[in-house]
Amino acid sequence: MSKKPFYSMVGIVHYQDKLKKKEERLIVNEFPLTIYLNKDEIITLLCTGDYLEYLALGFLSNEGLILSKDGIKEITIDKNAIFIETKEDILKGWTKRRSITSGCGKGGSFYDVLEEFDSKKIESNLVISPIEILYLMDKLEERSILYKETHGVHNSALCTTSDIIVFHQDIGRHNTIDKISGQCLLENIDKNDKLVVTSGRISSEIVIKLGKMNISILVSMAAPTDLAVSIAEKINLTLIANVRGRGMEVYTHPFRIQ
Amino acid sequence: MSKKPFYSMVGIVHYQDKLKKKEERLIVNEFPLTIYLNKDEIITLLCTGDYLEYLALGFLSNEGLILSKDGIKEITIDKNAIFIETKEDILKGWTKRRSITSGCGKGGSFYDVLEEFDSKKIESNLVISPIEILYLMDKLEERSILYKETHGVHNSALCTTSDIIVFHQDIGRHNTIDKISGQCLLENIDKNDKLVVTSGRISSEIVIKLGKMNISILVSMAAPTDLAVSIAEKINLTLIANVRGRGMEVYTHPFRIQ
Repeated sequence: MSKKPFYSMVGIVHYQDKLKKKEERLIVNEFPLTIYLNKDEIITLLCTGDYLEYLALGFLSNEGLILSKDGIKEITIDKNAIFIETKEDILKGWTKRRSITSGCGKGGSFYDVLEEFDSKKIESNLVISPIEILYLMDKLEERSILYKETHGVHNSALCTTSDIIVFHQDIGRHNTIDKISGQCLLENIDKNDKLVVTSGRISSEIVIKLGKMNISILVSMAAPTDLAVSIAEKINLTLIANVRGRGMEVYTHPFRIQ
Repeated sequence: MSKKPFYSMVGIVHYQDKLKKKEERLIVNEFPLTIYLNKDEIITLLCTGDYLEYLALGFLSNEGLILSKDGIKEITIDKNAIFIETKEDILKGWTKRRSITSGCGKGGSFYDVLEEFDSKKIESNLVISPIEILYLMDKLEERSILYKETHGVHNSALCTTSDIIVFHQDIGRHNTIDKISGQCLLENIDKNDKLVVTSGRISSEIVIKLGKMNISILVSMAAPTDLAVSIAEKINLTLIANVRGRGMEVYTHPFRIQ
C-alpha cells in the first residue's frame, strides 16, 4: 500500500463479468485522532487526517467546551494525538457527563442538548434564492475531487449566497462540519451571515452542530431524519435537502428562500 | 408530521426549475436508544428504532462486553432506554476504559482494539464465487424498501452463499452490523459459515466488528478506507468492495473467491 496525505494506492483484483484483472485503486485514508483537553482524554475521532487543529477545536466548540479563541493557551499535535490547553479549567461542569461520542451516538449528553435547545432560536437575516442554492451545490461538487477519486469522503462548505468561503472534506460527515467550526473559531470568520452546504445525510447531530454554530440555513444533497427536521423546526433553522438535478426540498422555515 | 414505525410523512416545499409546489415526503425516523448494562449507562445510539434488543446486545457483544446468551439475566425496554442485566458483573474489566463511542469515534478503546487484533486471525473454510456475490447484492437491494422510500438508511445482511438469513436496516451503518450480531446471539445462529453483505462504506470500525463476529467475508456496495483494508489484511478477512453493476473489487485475501 503506498500512502499519500489523503489517500493510498492499493492492489486489488477486479472482477467484471467474466474478466478478472489485477489493478490498482485509490482509497481514502482513515486517521485516528485522540483529543486531549488540559490533559484529559476526551475522544478519539476517526478522520481523514488533515486540518487536525480545526477538527479538534470545532469538535470541542460544538460540544460547548471551548467558546472562543481567546481562551486557548496552546495547541500541540503529536502523531495521532492533539493536546489543547486552555487558560481556565473549562472541564469543571463537563466531567459530570458520562461520555461524549460522535457519529451515530451521543453519550449521556443527548437529552441535555435537546433540553438546552428548547429555548434556543437561531436569529439571522440571511435569505437565499433557489438559483443561488443550486449554484453553491454545483461549486461544492466541483471542489469534491477526493470524493470523485475515492468515493470515500463527505464534503461541506461554509458559504455566502454567492461563493464558498471555507471547504472541508472528511470520511466522517460530522467531521466536515466540525472542521468548518474550528476554522471559523481560529480565523475569526463570522458564521452568522453564512450558510452550510453539505453532501451528507442530515441526522439530529448535524442539526445540533449547526444550532451551536448559530447558522440559519443548511443545504444538503441527501435526506434528513424526522428528528433532524423536528429540531430544525424548533430552533428556527431552514433545512433544504435532496438538492439534486435542478430540484430541492425545503423541510423547515421556507421564509428564508426568496 | 405523521409518524409510522419506521418513517414519518412531512410537508415540504418542492422547487423544480421555475416550479414551486407544496408536497409530502417520507423521511426515516431517528430514535435515541440509551443502553444500560447492570444499571451503568453505556451509550446512547441514534438508530431507526426497531429490534432494540438485537441492536443493544449486538453492540455490547461487538464491544466484548457480552459473550453469550447464557450470561444474560433480563432485558427490559422502557421507551428510549434498554436495560440489560447479566448474571455476573461483566463491567469489572471494562470501567477502566475512558469511553466507548460509535460512528466516527472509538473512545480510548481504539488502540486497545488494534493491539488485541495483532494476534487475531479469522478462520473459516467459506468460499464464494463472483456470481454468488452479485446474486446476494441483488437480493440485498430487493429487500431495501425503506432505503428506496427515504434514501435515509443502510442495509446489511448475514448470508449463506445462496441466500439472505438475517436482514437489517438502520440510519447508522454500524447499527445494521450490531443488529445482525445481536440477533445471532439471541437466536443461536452460527455466523462463522456465513458472510455479511452491506450497503455501507467500510471503515475500520466495521472491519473490527466483523472480526469480533468471526465472519470471514465482507461484501460492500461502497468503498473502504486504508485502515479498514490494513486491518482486514491482518485479521484474514476477505474484503470485497464497490460491488456495482456486474463488477466488484477484492481488496484482501482473494483466496476465498473461487
